Amino acid sequence: MANVPITVAHGDGIGPEIMDATLHILKEAGARLDIETIEIGEKVYLAGNSAGIAPESWESLRRTKVFLKAPITTPQGGGFSSLNVAVRKTLGLYANVRPCVSYHPFVSTKHPVMDVVIVRENEEDTYAGIEYRQTDQVEECLKLISRPGSEKIVRYAFEYAKKFGRKKVTCFIKDNIMKRTDGLFHRIFDQIAPEYPGIEADHWIVDIGAAKMSDTPENFDVIVMPNLYGDVLSDVAAQIAGSVGLAGSSNIGENVAMFEAIHGSAPRRAGQNLANPSGLFLGSILMLVHINQPDIAELAHNAWLRTIEDGVHTYDMFKEGTSKEKVGTREFAQAVVDRIGQKPQTLKPVTYSANVVETDAKPIYTLPHPAVKELVGIDIFLDWWKGTFYGVANDLGALVEQVNGNGLKLQTIANRGVKVYPDGQPDTFTVDHWRCRFVSDQGEGHAVNKHQIHALLERLMVAHLDVIKTENLYTFDGAKGYSA
Amino acid sequence: MANVPITVAHGDGIGPEIMDATLHILKEAGARLDIETIEIGEKVYLAGNSAGIAPESWESLRRTKVFLKAPITTPQGGGFSSLNVAVRKTLGLYANVRPCVSYHPFVSTKHPVMDVVIVRENEEDTYAGIEYRQTDQVEECLKLISRPGSEKIVRYAFEYAKKFGRKKVTCFIKDNIMKRTDGLFHRIFDQIAPEYPGIEADHWIVDIGAAKMSDTPENFDVIVMPNLYGDVLSDVAAQIAGSVGLAGSSNIGENVAMFEAIHGSAPRRAGQNLANPSGLFLGSILMLVHINQPDIAELAHNAWLRTIEDGVHTYDMFKEGTSKEKVGTREFAQAVVDRIGQKPQTLKPVTYSANVVETDAKPIYTLPHPAVKELVGIDIFLDWWKGTFYGVANDLGALVEQVNGNGLKLQTIANRGVKVYPDGQPDTFTVDHWRCRFVSDQGEGHAVNKHQIHALLERLMVAHLDVIKTENLYTFDGAKGYSA
Repeated sequence: MANVPITVAHGDGIGPEIMDATLHILKEAGARLDIETIEIGEKVYLAGNSAGIAPESWESLRRTKVFLKAPITTPQGGGFSSLNVAVRKTLGLYANVRPCVSYHPFVSTKHPVMDVVIVRENEEDTYAGIEYRQTDQVEECLKLISRPGSEKIVRYAFEYAKKFGRKKVTCFIKDNIMKRTDGLFHRIFDQIAPEYPGIEADHWIVDIGAAKMSDTPENFDVIVMPNLYGDVLSDVAAQIAGSVGLAGSSNIGENVAMFEAIHGSAPRRAGQNLANPSGLFLGSILMLVHINQPDIAELAHNAWLRTIEDGVHTYDMFKEGTSKEKVGTREFAQAVVDRIGQKPQTLKPVTYSANVVETDAKPIYTLPHPAVKELVGIDIFLDWWKGTFYGVANDLGALVEQVNGNGLKLQTIANRGVKVYPDGQPDTFTVDHWRCRFVSDQGEGHAVNKHQIHALLERLMVAHLDVIKTENLYTFDGAKGYSA
Repeated sequence: MANVPITVAHGDGIGPEIMDATLHILKEAGARLDIETIEIGEKVYLAGNSAGIAPESWESLRRTKVFLKAPITTPQGGGFSSLNVAVRKTLGLYANVRPCVSYHPFVSTKHPVMDVVIVRENEEDTYAGIEYRQTDQVEECLKLISRPGSEKIVRYAFEYAKKFGRKKVTCFIKDNIMKRTDGLFHRIFDQIAPEYPGIEADHWIVDIGAAKMSDTPENFDVIVMPNLYGDVLSDVAAQIAGSVGLAGSSNIGENVAMFEAIHGSAPRRAGQNLANPSGLFLGSILMLVHINQPDIAELAHNAWLRTIEDGVHTYDMFKEGTSKEKVGTREFAQAVVDRIGQKPQTLKPVTYSANVVETDAKPIYTLPHPAVKELVGIDIFLDWWKGTFYGVANDLGALVEQVNGNGLKLQTIANRGVKVYPDGQPDTFTVDHWRCRFVSDQGEGHAVNKHQIHALLERLMVAHLDVIKTENLYTFDGAKGYSA
């Protein structure tokens, strides 16, 4: 079989050592790779590339479509942006996949039976970083969840489960509160799950789900989540497995995929032949399966499991009693190489070859028939402050009622999601950020048009009411597209 | 000392039994209470009150300002809204406080040394439930964080620590990503912490913090968080302490406070003298301290600890070997009553009397000098779809450039937070939700005015570009109030 081109970056700190160790194992296991090397990280930042990667390196990534990346150091001081964010955004890496496995009794953990894979949506949610200072007192961040974004990640989770012989995919959402955004994610999960009849599907509200996962992770298999929950809970899962230093992850896009360790560049350990290469190595195992070399992945991963089991441990894993031999980075890699062809005796051997299946060529996303959208009103957000946190809602109401007209009328005013006008409670605490909902004077749900909205905005301007933000209200196929 | 009026609701399912048990212990411990009873829950919902509480019951809550609440059952079917949300919103209960304690070796847990209090902001964040369907493909939820809201909760956490003799308050935020919203929460934490020199203050990025808390909770004391993180992590903390059935919580407002168990009404266990009253009982301990009866709180809480330690356990806690006697709800309460005056021998006794201090009369919130706000542009959000997820940004750019004029010009177009125009990548995946940023044609940061904005909106309308949402761009005291 032909070699597969990949792009490799050796990174900073312990990066070069653990990359050398990883590549040594891969080579000896027979991985069929053509390696292109690029430089990323500290030197590249300091040479004036604000994201830590040179423009020409993107060409390599776009050509090979596979990136094995060592950890980097972001220089101190301002003006440097995250390399991972740049790579994720530029290449559309929508899925972050993190297997969290315990290696009891060889690595200490309170959860001896744990083998959970977190599949985290990687582009949307509050992590798009779209924020606005609204007023003196209020900041806002937009949480965006899209249908195609959710479809991509949910389908990826099921395809992953199928490819790796997993039995169950669980969805974590908070759709009892965020009925629209998390509701969309949940609905898409429910739509896609039946396409995979061999895989069990269930869901938890994220608070209870997180509690169960933290206490009894053995009851979970693959868990798919929106970005924020996935960020927090993938760290929880890696930590309680006892193995942050042993976890690798992949970042998957439609064209390009990146594989790495989840830990950082640990500059204080650099250059001393101390670091544990296991995180990056396990990232490279995900890469081998991705580029369709499951035979090599299986050989190398089983040799690594056997090494762990034989008690050949780097300093971070070494524990008197359990461990047998404390070794350096190079010696650890050599110990794995020496065990190529062997399987673990206590830990469960991996069997990628047997499980890899041809995936059906599903579309990555489908679009239902476009909904019929009708404009039915607008939420106008005002910056307004009368010097006190209490009892001013009726004063604002009186001012805003004055701009009613040409078919639009003020329906309610809310403050931080609590209705305060009309019929509010005088003891409700209010800040300087007010949402005024205007609907048709024929009643809520009746169509209005953009000209009416535009005229309303003009009247607000003339009345010196400080509009800082608007959200149009629509129905989609006759159903309300906005919360109360 | 005079009796303190409180409002009590017996709730549904196991509610009446555990409330009777709790009130029996409080009475025998000498609590000085005048009890007003209100009805909430299933019957009240079915009588036509959509939030499960009758209008006249609010009067009792506003009068006594103290609410001891048993769990309720929300009827199946639509149209019923959450009682807790209604109470929280109407009465402004801004702080949710949940002590999570392990009772090793008497209650099994993987974390024998755990005594963490989660203080969760309860009104803001994405939990205000403000959501909009934006387009065919995209849903939005607003995350709002306010200065006074953050100040209230952070100050509450420190005051709590002071009152209960706690040593450290930790803040969990994600301000490396949400620099404005979570950044505000963090900044206020840093401002308030120095007012409490006897209490250690630190902070974690929520992902790492959650991982540490789940693995080694013994390193945490009081943790204060925005709403969403607090929701998820308070459930994690209660579960890993081994004691969801044993946890009480308080919901604190400026005027009214509510105390409850964190578990539900468990209808299948109802009426059988089976249920464990400990969650509600521990909620009532928080209430006793709140109404300044720390002597009674200490007596009752120590008697309860002694009962747990003596192995007198309800069915849910009973474990052969550890437990001595399996008892019902009433017998458990009587066992606690029988131990009033005793202290635990193995578990640490509580000492509320010694720790209660007069709190300085700090203001709940302060307002710095209002910032000078200057309008410098607007983000216009468009619903636009050209039938494909790739390669159309330049087409949209060309259309939008046509509305430039009267001092405003298109600066960038972004899609889900990724810049796609000008100089976008053709392989960037885009959905039907576009953010067009307009700034002064003198350059970003130059002032513009509302009339220019209004004229721009008119040109967009005439050009049939479908504006669905706007966010004005401001500087505050010269600093940008918006993300890139």
